[in-house]
Amino acid sequence: MRATIMYKAGDVRVENVPDARVVEPTDAVIRVTSACICGSDLWPYKELEPVAGGRPMGHEAIGVVEAVGTDVHRIKRGDLVVMPFAFSDGTCDFCHEGLQTACSHGGYFGVGVVGGAQAEAVRVPFADGTLYKLPVREDDALIPSLLTLSDVMGTGHHAAVTARVSRGKKVAVIGDGAVGLCGVIAAKRLGAEQIIILGRHPGRIALAKDFGATDVVTEREEAAVEHVRKLTSGTGVHSILECVGTEDSMRTSILIARAGATVGRVGVPHYEGTPASQQAFYGNISVGGGPAPVRAYIETLLPDILEGRIHPGLVFDRTIGLDQVPAGYRAMNERRALKVMIRP
Amino acid sequence: MRATIMYKAGDVRVENVPDARVVEPTDAVIRVTSACICGSDLWPYKELEPVAGGRPMGHEAIGVVEAVGTDVHRIKRGDLVVMPFAFSDGTCDFCHEGLQTACSHGGYFGVGVVGGAQAEAVRVPFADGTLYKLPVREDDALIPSLLTLSDVMGTGHHAAVTARVSRGKKVAVIGDGAVGLCGVIAAKRLGAEQIIILGRHPGRIALAKDFGATDVVTEREEAAVEHVRKLTSGTGVHSILECVGTEDSMRTSILIARAGATVGRVGVPHYEGTPASQQAFYGNISVGGGPAPVRAYIETLLPDILEGRIHPGLVFDRTIGLDQVPAGYRAMNERRALKVMIRP
Repeated sequence: MRATIMYKAGDVRVENVPDARVVEPTDAVIRVTSACICGSDLWPYKELEPVAGGRPMGHEAIGVVEAVGTDVHRIKRGDLVVMPFAFSDGTCDFCHEGLQTACSHGGYFGVGVVGGAQAEAVRVPFADGTLYKLPVREDDALIPSLLTLSDVMGTGHHAAVTARVSRGKKVAVIGDGAVGLCGVIAAKRLGAEQIIILGRHPGRIALAKDFGATDVVTEREEAAVEHVRKLTSGTGVHSILECVGTEDSMRTSILIARAGATVGRVGVPHYEGTPASQQAFYGNISVGGGPAPVRAYIETLLPDILEGRIHPGLVFDRTIGLDQVPAGYRAMNERRALKVMIRP
Repeated sequence: MRATIMYKAGDVRVENVPDARVVEPTDAVIRVTSACICGSDLWPYKELEPVAGGRPMGHEAIGVVEAVGTDVHRIKRGDLVVMPFAFSDGTCDFCHEGLQTACSHGGYFGVGVVGGAQAEAVRVPFADGTLYKLPVREDDALIPSLLTLSDVMGTGHHAAVTARVSRGKKVAVIGDGAVGLCGVIAAKRLGAEQIIILGRHPGRIALAKDFGATDVVTEREEAAVEHVRKLTSGTGVHSILECVGTEDSMRTSILIARAGATVGRVGVPHYEGTPASQQAFYGNISVGGGPAPVRAYIETLLPDILEGRIHPGLVFDRTIGLDQVPAGYRAMNERRALKVMIRP
């Protein structure tokens, strides 16, 4: 089968690899009908040291179940399913608590022995725990929005939940990538009164406004802090969705926080120590977040997509075939594309 | 009047200073009947650079109101009151939200123009918002426990609240100082099932057990992490009360956290960036806390003290007069005393 392999920074190839197959009795194999390139894929695209044999890429997919192991009971051949970016057994304490990204037997796609989803097919461990059967057909118009349940919409929601967004709150979203934009959707969905997007890409800012952003801050660092404070009567915001992952974005998050505020960070941290630690302390500002348990959030968010109340699929602004994946990476890396959907 | 002034690290003196007096119409002056030395006073005692004129010390007191300004209505001359370590107006949004340490007009005793409480008397700004009238006499046997409401018991409670301790949770308390010990009381009070104290001073550990600690870890750093994991079936604890403030203690806090856990930090951070940021991220571990709004917690904790359910006053193991304050600092700094009460 064809699959995407990254060999080093900037070197992504679509190649022939051995077919995905059931290895463990709890596995399924899905034929990928739609996948995508993630903002987090751009980190290795910028930084990856040469890897012998390469790294399989992709962790977001909708697909049709082609085969299941003998110990898979809930998921059946022919089901159209959404695949969260992390697999999870569905039975451990963490899964029961809704923190599937800490599953005792879980892991991430495209890491270790499990392949990636930017491919014709992918092996899914713990299929019963991991996959979620969708109540639509694979050509449904809602597929782009449903595909975001595998990562970016669930991740934006996690940022909002861990930042304790609730009715009437003032919220800032740092980052105008797909996750930040989904964070705007999530903040609005949870009742935020004011949603300030910090970003500077005109097309993305326009989409953020469509999604519910009330204010735009295009400055960075000190100037951004000053602008946000001005927009909030000097006190700062209750909730910050940190959707970037740099030291600067985290510092800005803390410096725009109202005393008692919470930062929900979902951008993979590219810093050693969380900055502005003393400011956070003196302001009683909490920093939470991490890899989103998107599996837990599918049931929460699915009705809003099916009934047309949210449209996260609008983050996709380009659709390509599998062979165009290297060009897709280039386009996203150069910010010519916001998020690329792949139809293998 | 006599008051405690610190001139530089290790140089604490009790001296004659101008009498505390009402300056603003919202002020009160209290005659201090009991005060104490705080673990946080030991930081300047170790590190303070020479200060011209010195720094007035002390931020915990019970006292009798001697004078009130023309705009003080709730607090009256002759009231026995407990004074939280921070003053607050009682009327701003933050005070209404119960975060008095972020009060729009608030501040700390012993900083800036407001004097310290290790003195015969102290000026209290915003007396109506700051002071809490006690329903006992100044010679009551409960005075030591009531005095802890001005800081350490409220601070231990804040650590527990921000660490989201609740019924059945596994909790670790880092630090066997007075705040850590009050954190044990608070964790037990909130229903923790397991309370692991990390400390090594035999007398304090014994007190921690009296207060409800179920396990003791005397190791530090990696060995401490291993021991806590062993005590928690390998998964770590739900809640960590970080009551020290060093980089090592914060790193340990994060490394003993169960996925999804929360660290409540109340030790003033003596580090630039919060360590183990990536481990915190991948484990969805939150870090919160800060200066405790002890004013808000007095009403919560007072009944438990008055009705004998908690005994935080046991953290005092020495009582001295005002002139012995320099010796009191030495004793606490050398860990010969846990917490020193002052009867001016």
